[in-house]
Amino acid sequence: MRPITLLTDFGLSDTYVGQVKGSILAIAPGATIVDLTHAVPPQDVLAGAFLLWSAVEVFPPGTVHVAVVDPGVGSLRRAIALATARGDTLVGPDNGLLVLAAERLGGVHRAVELSRSRFWRATPSATFHGRDIFGPVAAHLSAGVPLDELGPPIDDVFRLALPAPVGARGEVIHVDVYGNLVTNFAGVDLPRGFQVVLGDRTVPAAAYYAAVKPGELVAVVGSSGLLEVSVRDGSAAELTGARRGTPVSIEAR
Amino acid sequence: MRPITLLTDFGLSDTYVGQVKGSILAIAPGATIVDLTHAVPPQDVLAGAFLLWSAVEVFPPGTVHVAVVDPGVGSLRRAIALATARGDTLVGPDNGLLVLAAERLGGVHRAVELSRSRFWRATPSATFHGRDIFGPVAAHLSAGVPLDELGPPIDDVFRLALPAPVGARGEVIHVDVYGNLVTNFAGVDLPRGFQVVLGDRTVPAAAYYAAVKPGELVAVVGSSGLLEVSVRDGSAAELTGARRGTPVSIEAR
Amino acid sequence: MRPITLLTDFGLSDTYVGQVKGSILAIAPGATIVDLTHAVPPQDVLAGAFLLWSAVEVFPPGTVHVAVVDPGVGSLRRAIALATARGDTLVGPDNGLLVLAAERLGGVHRAVELSRSRFWRATPSATFHGRDIFGPVAAHLSAGVPLDELGPPIDDVFRLALPAPVGARGEVIHVDVYGNLVTNFAGVDLPRGFQVVLGDRTVPAAAYYAAVKPGELVAVVGSSGLLEVSVRDGSAAELTGARRGTPVSIEAR
Repeated sequence: MRPITLLTDFGLSDTYVGQVKGSILAIAPGATIVDLTHAVPPQDVLAGAFLLWSAVEVFPPGTVHVAVVDPGVGSLRRAIALATARGDTLVGPDNGLLVLAAERLGGVHRAVELSRSRFWRATPSATFHGRDIFGPVAAHLSAGVPLDELGPPIDDVFRLALPAPVGARGEVIHVDVYGNLVTNFAGVDLPRGFQVVLGDRTVPAAAYYAAVKPGELVAVVGSSGLLEVSVRDGSAAELTGARRGTPVSIEAR
Repeated sequence: MRPITLLTDFGLSDTYVGQVKGSILAIAPGATIVDLTHAVPPQDVLAGAFLLWSAVEVFPPGTVHVAVVDPGVGSLRRAIALATARGDTLVGPDNGLLVLAAERLGGVHRAVELSRSRFWRATPSATFHGRDIFGPVAAHLSAGVPLDELGPPIDDVFRLALPAPVGARGEVIHVDVYGNLVTNFAGVDLPRGFQVVLGDRTVPAAAYYAAVKPGELVAVVGSSGLLEVSVRDGSAAELTGARRGTPVSIEAR
Repeated sequence: MRPITLLTDFGLSDTYVGQVKGSILAIAPGATIVDLTHAVPPQDVLAGAFLLWSAVEVFPPGTVHVAVVDPGVGSLRRAIALATARGDTLVGPDNGLLVLAAERLGGVHRAVELSRSRFWRATPSATFHGRDIFGPVAAHLSAGVPLDELGPPIDDVFRLALPAPVGARGEVIHVDVYGNLVTNFAGVDLPRGFQVVLGDRTVPAAAYYAAVKPGELVAVVGSSGLLEVSVRDGSAAELTGARRGTPVSIEAR
């Protein structure tokens, strides 16, 4: 069976995540289900898209990723599933949440609208498609149902993009739990011999945190392949006050 | 093997939840274990009972649900297991925590007191029955031990009830992560053509959030079958200041 | 397959924990993976060592425990795996994080440095060894690779110790989610007929919480075998203001 991951803005205080897993196990007993995170800021589709993007590559090809950040639930927004070039499947609302991750997995190979209710939970609610549509569909995919059976093909998936750097001017696109400032500069695109400018600070680039002293700022290509501004043994967010959207630029050293 | 769910007030900062899982895996290797939530307010049995009630129905019949909100641990309160009419089993303290969920699963079919220590962890502690009694018992149930072997039958299970509406006057019984106000009006009992009164506000009823504009209040029958007061793309708890116990009534539109 | 546990300071807001699980499932599909906790205070190795110690014993012998609290990641600190006398394996950085838990499992039987990159993820990052080294190594161990194949033996593992009591003078070493004050007095070392002194308060010892009235302080040997100061149906941390490092002593009653 293909493993299933879950990424939502449901938090862990309610039983919503548990209910999604129940709906999966009712169809695919013994399925391997992994939480990516459930702490996406409520209804923040772009933050969810980034977090999903950050996590999918390490999973084995063929994994079924379910993502639910869905302010439009119950309205006319479509429910979709995307097959990636690498063989993974992404399941969720058609609001841009899935597309960045699909691009990381080789791009959208095929897309379908989830319109066939025989793959859903009986009598789905208007407010909880994670449990009633996306979870069950993922369970069927995990158990071997082909994508094409889930609904008709579509070619107009809603697109969403992270802000891209303009030349040497980028920005912070995520602040992680350690206070690392993840920027939108891809490590593979960086020139040799650069330093980072953040407000009135200049931050040296290095290969790892230990290149600077504890408490000092350093710019490192992080684990997702993006340039990050960090403090060794500390929090760059606390030290600098930067947050999502704060401008960051690079310049020759 | 029957899947096992866990619902507790242990939080996720300590290793208590992990320890319960360890005690299960020591008896039932490879068991499927699902977290419902571990964020029940400490020792709030009624809140735990509601959250358990909210989650159990979607799981496949035969699931073993373990719930631990247990201010009386180590005293004379009994440890019990309940078989439901649908074929599920509920395991936990005899303080009312399990009964609402049992009713949702068709009612209590049989009940036993967990008095046979050969199904427990050796030398159980006085303070952690989740790890030392409930987890091991659930593992044995998952692996096929019949309920009747776990202890003698009982017929005086402690009962607990959520506050019921009095005619058209109900109340908020749960505030979820989005700030939705879950009331104690069951969707199936609602009249046609009603609206909701909350303090000095009148809230229209609708089938889904998108029936109102962003930022507006709307009353929807939510995913657990109860009437909820929500704000489209926002938090009804923040907008109205309502919390658990706040009165809510319905009236003809 | 041997079960795998995870304990980190990654939190649950990012996808870091999910990524570690992905790296495990890519090598050991269907592996049983259990979270111990991911709420270790960032980079607090001693707190992580205590929490790992608290959780490992209940798991079945042979379990593979991965722990990552790793301020030195990317520097010269070694990556290690320890086999315990009981047959478990501990995987993580060589900064003291693993050793207390190993002692609880019978002591370090063998130790190796994780230097063989064929057991790692391809092209490991400098900042995320949990995903790129420790997770993959645990997956190989779970799937049956012997410890000795992972790297050369070492005999100079970095040691770390919790503060030990000096005679009758001890201290709080952990405050749990309920506000229980876990001390460094082992229950097995306690004299008969003692009471606990915490600031200007004298706290009676008892076998369980219900020995005192609600709201009163009581000292109980807790579920990990250490003496704890608790409030029945309340929080000892709130009532007393004690925290990690607060002195606690015992005296004859």
